[in-house]
Amino acid sequence: MNDLARFRRAAHDAVDWLADYLENLERYPVCPAVQPGEIRSRLPAHPPESAESWDALLADLDRVVLPGITHWQSPMFFGYFPANASGPAIIGDLISSGLGVQGMMWATSPAATELETHVLDWMVDLMGLPEHFRSTGSGGGVIQDTASSASLVALLVARERKTRFTTNRVGVKGTLTAYTSSQAHSSIEKAAGIAGIGRENLRLIDVDHTYAMRPGALDRAIQTDLAAGRTPFFVSATVGTTSSTAIDPVRAIGEICRRHGLWLHVDAAHAGSAAVCPEFRWIHDGLELADSYCFNPHKWLLTNFDCDCFYVADRAALIQTLSILPEYLRNQATESGAVFDYRDWGIPLGRRFRALKLWFVIRAYGAEGLRTHIRNGVALAQEFAGWVKADDRFELCAPRPLNLVCFRLKAGDGANERLRDALNASGKMYLIHTKLDGKLVLRLAIGGTYTERRHLERAWALITETAAGLPGVGSGVD
Amino acid sequence: MNDLARFRRAAHDAVDWLADYLENLERYPVCPAVQPGEIRSRLPAHPPESAESWDALLADLDRVVLPGITHWQSPMFFGYFPANASGPAIIGDLISSGLGVQGMMWATSPAATELETHVLDWMVDLMGLPEHFRSTGSGGGVIQDTASSASLVALLVARERKTRFTTNRVGVKGTLTAYTSSQAHSSIEKAAGIAGIGRENLRLIDVDHTYAMRPGALDRAIQTDLAAGRTPFFVSATVGTTSSTAIDPVRAIGEICRRHGLWLHVDAAHAGSAAVCPEFRWIHDGLELADSYCFNPHKWLLTNFDCDCFYVADRAALIQTLSILPEYLRNQATESGAVFDYRDWGIPLGRRFRALKLWFVIRAYGAEGLRTHIRNGVALAQEFAGWVKADDRFELCAPRPLNLVCFRLKAGDGANERLRDALNASGKMYLIHTKLDGKLVLRLAIGGTYTERRHLERAWALITETAAGLPGVGSGVD
Repeated sequence: MNDLARFRRAAHDAVDWLADYLENLERYPVCPAVQPGEIRSRLPAHPPESAESWDALLADLDRVVLPGITHWQSPMFFGYFPANASGPAIIGDLISSGLGVQGMMWATSPAATELETHVLDWMVDLMGLPEHFRSTGSGGGVIQDTASSASLVALLVARERKTRFTTNRVGVKGTLTAYTSSQAHSSIEKAAGIAGIGRENLRLIDVDHTYAMRPGALDRAIQTDLAAGRTPFFVSATVGTTSSTAIDPVRAIGEICRRHGLWLHVDAAHAGSAAVCPEFRWIHDGLELADSYCFNPHKWLLTNFDCDCFYVADRAALIQTLSILPEYLRNQATESGAVFDYRDWGIPLGRRFRALKLWFVIRAYGAEGLRTHIRNGVALAQEFAGWVKADDRFELCAPRPLNLVCFRLKAGDGANERLRDALNASGKMYLIHTKLDGKLVLRLAIGGTYTERRHLERAWALITETAAGLPGVGSGVD
Repeated sequence: MNDLARFRRAAHDAVDWLADYLENLERYPVCPAVQPGEIRSRLPAHPPESAESWDALLADLDRVVLPGITHWQSPMFFGYFPANASGPAIIGDLISSGLGVQGMMWATSPAATELETHVLDWMVDLMGLPEHFRSTGSGGGVIQDTASSASLVALLVARERKTRFTTNRVGVKGTLTAYTSSQAHSSIEKAAGIAGIGRENLRLIDVDHTYAMRPGALDRAIQTDLAAGRTPFFVSATVGTTSSTAIDPVRAIGEICRRHGLWLHVDAAHAGSAAVCPEFRWIHDGLELADSYCFNPHKWLLTNFDCDCFYVADRAALIQTLSILPEYLRNQATESGAVFDYRDWGIPLGRRFRALKLWFVIRAYGAEGLRTHIRNGVALAQEFAGWVKADDRFELCAPRPLNLVCFRLKAGDGANERLRDALNASGKMYLIHTKLDGKLVLRLAIGGTYTERRHLERAWALITETAAGLPGVGSGVD
């Protein structure tokens, strides 16, 4: 396969396989009906001694892989949040794989670093983000793999700033305490554990009726910790929680953080992308008070995984936290101070050229195309919510500021569980549940690259028909 | 670009662009002659309002990107370590981008998880790794992005095991201390900082004349810390250091770790791949004493970045360290305990389907093909070292167990710096330096996917010709 003529032929075959797959997405059961171990059982116990043909590999995509795939790109996939892959992103990623460069430092491929910096500044324009996140001032953006990693990095810099960068060591100055809402993503608790803060030193602040953090409760929790001699240092506000896309009040939280000298991180992993549309920028109100911010184009902005955009207002603090410069990485460009070396902006040393796919997406869609994609997702969600509201068997369970609808059968948790399982087992659509106020709630997340109105109509028909067949639900009032 | 017919055409264009690029790799200057900011200056200050054509994007790969690329895939690239991309890996990655699935849990795409588990068990076969790393026992393997992340995860599990998983909190039981050699990768120190252990609590153990860790010095350092009331918990041994591919004596280190109850992690990021050849498996002697191990197929095993294979002997401890299960991730498969959920095996929640490219590489090359690739790299390095040895102006500076040759002009650091800079500025080849025993040494790392004997001959000719032109070096004795 080092023979490039063979590579060219095989890669063309792969493109056709992939384009065929995408064209036929709706023919696959969204969620596969496989048991644990079933896919492994189709694979030889030991690796092959001799090379196999490209045709054998391609055939096994159909025989082994596809039967075990949850089709996240299906227009009938409404689980979790969208994981947008799109043509321009796939192609950008292909070029990145082929160039095979390392973006760990400017010197190891200047274009990889400069394009990343530039495209992340473009995102500031596109989303109307605060100026202090631009690379041209004291801040800047970088691509992380996930919001989990971005939030961990934010927490680490906050920890170091609070402990004056003396040791990279926890526990020397009394107990550090961190804060996020009870609806925040599990990655914040994970980060507190990884950083050695202690999961029990993360306070889960109460939320209001919209599932957004209560600033008053945050302030009281900080005061209580201060009074007990502990050291509050970090708050993570969520713009678009995973359960229900609740929007924490960033401005009020930010003012509390300023007053007490705490780092404010804003995790907008899913919802942030909405800010490409001016009418949704209210979700970021107060973001100029944040020390760090992240959102994932790999969720709702047509850029395939992995691509989390992470911004800091003070890049010097970030670099001071994570930089180590061994001899074999020393180079003139780094020592000149005129370049960014992104290895100092995250945990891994090696870095893929991920800016390429984001650059392709922005250019191939244009700002207009991105806005259209977001607006479609929000409009479809609002329309779907209207259908739910009009059916007396169902109830809406949370505000729907963007593209997620939380709803349930009034008939109780058991009925909703059975409805979810029946829908998913049908292979015709896919959604998951969460719990809100202790009740089991179904989540329908809209915004897939290929999802259109007709798919939502079909989903609603499936939901109502399936519900009608459940004991104690009936065929509805309409 | 949601139009799939357009995607198909554009992707075929991209394949041809990429195959052309790879066929013409030798025509590009290996290292670009650009100044900081030069690539950015070719980009519009603001993102486009309207969609741009695919042709415009493709043209900018040539106009903007390539002039700023360090060509890591060039057969004349000898810097750092290889970053092998290969046809099968690129194609596997393309399919992964297109499927766009999330491998965070078994339930989110069963084939992604099961193929990953299976292929990592295949690697145990291929490399003759200890049985306790197999998923079929109490251990198992997982793909991480980099060895930096793998080593961090290992250190975290070690920290939790030592502190009895009580708090994910550092500092509650006195100072924890970790150990690695003075030649170890900078990521170990970075991990100690991230985990809140404190960089100053990582002991850099002295090395012997081969730059390998001295087990006696390790034992003494542990004893000293114990006597001072500190708590030793973690040792990272290196198989193939970055500076000179020194091989730490894993067996002797492992015995010390067992005696004192310390976690042994083995970082074989670059060199580990050599173990696909039985004649190089001595590098892993004693690996059955290790608690965790990692190596990077994305360096020398033809699988493009990112792909680090990370193994643990006790997966329960790993999962206990990193697991958090919010409601929206609950599912039947997870609760049955019959599946692996890889989100609990690393830092990020989201996970790309990376097993696909590794599966393609193993099958497209076969075990034979992988061994041939490794053997070629080692043989070329040995031959190159012979040329250096035969030239009185040069000296070899470290053992060459595998595919890296450390050498220098006897004429002093300044001459070697000038030689490096002249070679790299020529665009005809690329190498970097390190320091060994305080002396500046040139590193020639062999093993690129496309590097053949003729490229080494050309490199040696360039080196000797360039050296001859340096003041105080002369034209050699031959």
